[in-house]
Amino acid sequence: MSIKKKSLRIIPLGGLGEIGLNMMVIEYGDSAIIIDAGLMFPEDYMLGVDIVIPVMDYVRKNSDTILGIFLTHAHEDHIGALPYLLKDVNIPVYGTPFTIGIIKRKIEEFNIPGSSVVYHEVNPKNKVKLGEFELDFIRVNHSTIDGVGIAINTPVGIIIHTGDFKISYSIASEYKTDINKFAQYGNKNVLALMSDSTNVEKEGYTVDASKIGDTLRNIISNSSGRVIVALFASNIGRIKQVIKIAENLNRKIVFNGRSVETSVSIAKELGRINFNPDNEIDIKDANNYPDENLIIITTGSQGEPMSSLARMATGVHKQIKIKTDDIVILSSKFIPGNEKAITNIINTIYKRGADVIYEKISDIHVSGHAFQEELKMMINLTKPTFFIPIHGEYRHLFHHAKLAESVGLSKENIILAENGNVIEYNGNNFEINESVTTGRVLVDGKGIGDVGRSVLKERRMLSEDGLVIVTIVFDEETGIVIHGPEIISRGFVFWTQTGHLVDDAQCVILEIIEDVHAETKNRTEIIRSKIQKALTQYFNYTIRRRPVIVPIILEL
Amino acid sequence: MSIKKKSLRIIPLGGLGEIGLNMMVIEYGDSAIIIDAGLMFPEDYMLGVDIVIPVMDYVRKNSDTILGIFLTHAHEDHIGALPYLLKDVNIPVYGTPFTIGIIKRKIEEFNIPGSSVVYHEVNPKNKVKLGEFELDFIRVNHSTIDGVGIAINTPVGIIIHTGDFKISYSIASEYKTDINKFAQYGNKNVLALMSDSTNVEKEGYTVDASKIGDTLRNIISNSSGRVIVALFASNIGRIKQVIKIAENLNRKIVFNGRSVETSVSIAKELGRINFNPDNEIDIKDANNYPDENLIIITTGSQGEPMSSLARMATGVHKQIKIKTDDIVILSSKFIPGNEKAITNIINTIYKRGADVIYEKISDIHVSGHAFQEELKMMINLTKPTFFIPIHGEYRHLFHHAKLAESVGLSKENIILAENGNVIEYNGNNFEINESVTTGRVLVDGKGIGDVGRSVLKERRMLSEDGLVIVTIVFDEETGIVIHGPEIISRGFVFWTQTGHLVDDAQCVILEIIEDVHAETKNRTEIIRSKIQKALTQYFNYTIRRRPVIVPIILEL
Repeated sequence: MSIKKKSLRIIPLGGLGEIGLNMMVIEYGDSAIIIDAGLMFPEDYMLGVDIVIPVMDYVRKNSDTILGIFLTHAHEDHIGALPYLLKDVNIPVYGTPFTIGIIKRKIEEFNIPGSSVVYHEVNPKNKVKLGEFELDFIRVNHSTIDGVGIAINTPVGIIIHTGDFKISYSIASEYKTDINKFAQYGNKNVLALMSDSTNVEKEGYTVDASKIGDTLRNIISNSSGRVIVALFASNIGRIKQVIKIAENLNRKIVFNGRSVETSVSIAKELGRINFNPDNEIDIKDANNYPDENLIIITTGSQGEPMSSLARMATGVHKQIKIKTDDIVILSSKFIPGNEKAITNIINTIYKRGADVIYEKISDIHVSGHAFQEELKMMINLTKPTFFIPIHGEYRHLFHHAKLAESVGLSKENIILAENGNVIEYNGNNFEINESVTTGRVLVDGKGIGDVGRSVLKERRMLSEDGLVIVTIVFDEETGIVIHGPEIISRGFVFWTQTGHLVDDAQCVILEIIEDVHAETKNRTEIIRSKIQKALTQYFNYTIRRRPVIVPIILEL
Repeated sequence: MSIKKKSLRIIPLGGLGEIGLNMMVIEYGDSAIIIDAGLMFPEDYMLGVDIVIPVMDYVRKNSDTILGIFLTHAHEDHIGALPYLLKDVNIPVYGTPFTIGIIKRKIEEFNIPGSSVVYHEVNPKNKVKLGEFELDFIRVNHSTIDGVGIAINTPVGIIIHTGDFKISYSIASEYKTDINKFAQYGNKNVLALMSDSTNVEKEGYTVDASKIGDTLRNIISNSSGRVIVALFASNIGRIKQVIKIAENLNRKIVFNGRSVETSVSIAKELGRINFNPDNEIDIKDANNYPDENLIIITTGSQGEPMSSLARMATGVHKQIKIKTDDIVILSSKFIPGNEKAITNIINTIYKRGADVIYEKISDIHVSGHAFQEELKMMINLTKPTFFIPIHGEYRHLFHHAKLAESVGLSKENIILAENGNVIEYNGNNFEINESVTTGRVLVDGKGIGDVGRSVLKERRMLSEDGLVIVTIVFDEETGIVIHGPEIISRGFVFWTQTGHLVDDAQCVILEIIEDVHAETKNRTEIIRSKIQKALTQYFNYTIRRRPVIVPIILEL
C-alpha cells in the first residue's frame, strides 16, 4: 500500500472535457471513494466503436484504498463503465434502489459473477460513513428517477457533488430536488461545490415537468386513434405521466421494446410505478382493443433503425404497423448526431398518414439538466467557498465558471480543471500541481482498448474510398510473372460502370514490373512500394479518389 | 422533338423530400424552363461521397424544349448541380448579377469552355419573355444577396415561386423582400404559390437582421483585442454589417479564406460592397497593426478542419494565431452534423484564453428562411388559389400544407407533391397522374453516379470493422499448400495487441484446407466460401467484430 498524503484530493477521471464519461476519485489519506463511472457514445470519427470508457488505471492501481463507488443515478454516462471496472477490481457499489436495480441487470448481462459484487442501497435519510468520509445523499430531480447529489463530509470540510440535476416544483415531492437540504448545507460552510455544467449555455429555467404533462394530456385527449409514445426507457417520471393520462382517458397501456420493458419492470418491483395491473395489456393483445383505447409506450426515440418505433414505422413490426389516425409522440430530445435518423422516421410516419409530435414543434420534452438560473440557484443555496464546474466540455466548464463569478464567487476560488488534474486542498486553496493518467478507451465488440489511432485511421481511409488489392506471383528462379497482376477492389468503384479503370491500372503495374529488372535486390519490396505510389497517383488523377492500395507480391 | 401537351406542368426534380437539391421544371406545350439546379451535401451513410446532385435525365431528354434555367440565388443548394448539367446540354442561364457572378466562377473552375455557356443578367425591373412564359423577378431577402422570387405568367395563370426568403424590415431597401410587389400579384389572381418550407417548424418571426447588427456592434465595441468573425462566405449582408462596424470603430479589415475572398471580390466588382479601400489590409500586414485596430473576416464557421479559423485556433495559421484577449465570433448556424467539429474549435479557442461568441449563447446569427408568421404573410400577400409547399423534407411540406390550411386555403387546393411528380393543371385543378424519373446521383471525386448502394455498403462494412485478407497458394498438380495461409488486416485489430487472434485464425483456415480433399471439384471455390464463413464466425465469437473477409486463393 502506497503512503498517501493527509490532504483532500479530488481527481476527475472523466467528464471534465466532454459530455459523458463522468467519473471522479475523492481521497483523503488512505481513504478514497469514487463517484460514478460513466461511458460516452463514440464520436463520428471513431468508426466501428461501440462505446468509450475512461482510462481507469489510476483506480486499478489504487484499488486497495478505494472504499466504495457511489452512483448518482442510473444513466449510462454515469454507470456505463462500471462493469469494465468491476471485472478487474472488487469495490462495493452504493446507489439508490432504482440505480442499483439497473446496474445489477447490467452487471449480470456482463457475466460478472453476481456474488462477487457487493451492493449497498442508500437513501437520502441515512448517511454512510466510510473511512475519513461521511456521505449524505440529497434527492435531485433529473430525467430518470432516484437521482441524488452527494454531500461529502471530509476532515477539512464539506464538498457537494450535485450529480445531474434540474429544479422542478410541480411534481410529487419524492421526485423534487431537495432544495431545502441543499440550503441547510449552505449554512454549514461548504468548502466546495461541484455542479453539473451540461446546460450552462441555456438561459432561464427549464420548463416545469407539469407543463410537459399538460401538453401530453392535451395531445392524447384530442386523439381519436392509437397513441404511440416513444421515450428514453430510463425516464420513469415521463412514463408515469403517460400512465396517469392513459388511465384517466381509459386507454390500455402497452409497454414495448426491451429497454422500456426492463426499466418499467425494475421500477414496478421497487414500487416506483404503481397502477392498476388490469390497465396493462400485452403487445400480442393490443389489436384486440379499439384504437382509441390504446396507448403504446415504446423505444426508438433516437431513430435507432432496429427499435420498436422504427419497425412500426416501416411496417415490419409484428403487431403494430403505423396507420392513418395514429399519433406518434417522440417525448425526447434530438441528440446531436441522431437528427437524420430521427427525422427519417418522422417523414416515414407522416407518409403513412399518421401524425407525429416531436420536440421541434411541441413542448413534449424537457431537458434533465439545469439551465442558467437553476445553476445560479444551486450556487446561492449551497454558498460554497470554492466552485468546481463538472460535467461538460471545456466551453461548458468555462461558462459555468463565468456564471459562478457573476453570482459573487471570486475568480481565484473557481477551479477550471481538466480530467486527470489532482485538485488538492492545501488548507487555504485548491491547487493543481500534478496529474494522473487519464484518457479514453475505445470498446469495439469484445475488444477493449485495442482499437486506437492507427486502426481508426485505416478504417477512415477504407470508409472514404475503399481499397484495391493487387496480387502478383513471380517465379522465384526466373523472375517471370506466373500469376497476375490480378486486381480486386472493395468499396472503390462499381465494376460494371468504372471497371475499365481497374483494367487500365494493370498497364500501370505491368510497366513497373518491366522497369524493375528480375535480378534487382529486394525486387518485391521495390515493386510493392512502386505499385503503392503509382496506383495512388493514377486513381487520384483519373477519378480523384485515394483507395487503400494493398499489393500482395509473392515469389514462389 | 416530342409533341407536348398544351397544359401547364410543374415537375419538381429535387427539393420536395429533402433540404437541398432544389430543381424544378415548368412546362407548357413546347416551352419549358428550369428553376434552380441545386446540390445536397452527403448524408452520414454516404461514405466518401463529396456531393449529391439530382438525377437530371428528364432535363437531358427534353433539352430541346428548355428555353432557360433561372437561378433564384447563389447558394449551392440552388446552383451546385448546374455545372454537371451544362457539361452535357447547352441551356441559357438567367440570374441576378451576384448570382451570375458566383456561377460563372464555378463554371470556370469546372473547365466548361466559357464561350459555350450563355448568361443573361436579370433584375426586378425587367421581365423576361421566353416561349409561353413571361417571368417577373421579385426581390427577396435571404442569407445571401441578390435573391429573387419569380412570378411566372403562363397561358393559364400566374405561378409564384418564392425562392428562399425571409422578411426583414430594418435593412436597406435593396435587400428587403419586396412585399409590395408580392401584394400586387395578390390582386391579379395568382393560380399557384410555391413557397419555401425550410423553417415551417419555427414559430413566430425571424429575428430582424438589424438586431444581429446591434449585437455584433455591442460585442465588437466592448472588445479591446483583435476581433475574428467567421461566417458563410456568401452572406454579403452580414459582411457589410461587420465592415460598417469596423469602420465606425476604426478597425482595419482583413478578408481571409478562399471562399470569403472570392465572394467579397465578386460583390466589390458589382458595387454591392462599398467601403474606403484604405480600410482593408492584407493578411500579411495584419500583425503590423495594434490588435484593437483589427477585424478579420474569415471562413471556417462550420469547423472545417483545414479552414482559416481552424488553423488560427490550432496555431498553424501562417499569420494569425489565436491568443488571449482575441474575440472570435461565429456568426453562423451550427449545421446539424457539424456540431462536434464546431464545438471542438470553440473548446480549443477557449483553452487559448480567447473568448468565443456563438449562436448558442448570443444572437449573432439569424436564419435566412422565413418562420411560420412570415410564411403565413406570404400566402396572405399573394392570395393563391392553389398552394404547393416546396424546399423541405416530407415533414416540412406536410406542416407547410397544414399552415396554409390554417390561414384559409382549402385542403383540396393544397398539393403535397414529391420529387418527380408531374403536377398538371387541367383547367380546374392540379392533378398528379404521372411521374418522371428522379433520384440522387452521388458524386465522389471525378466519378458521377458510379458510387451506388453496393459500393456504399462495402465502405460501411470496411469502416466498421476493417478487413482481413487471406492468401493461400496451392500447387496445381499436387494440391499442396506452397504459400500461406498468410493473413493481413487493415482497420481490424492493432497487430501487437490482438495479433494472436490473427495467428489463431490460421489454425481455423488450415483445418478447412485439410477437410477439403485435394481432388475435390471446385476445390478453391469451396475453400474460399468456407474460409469466408468460418472466419466471420470465428472473429464474431472471439472479438464480436465482423471484418470483411477477402480470401485470395491461387492454384499455380
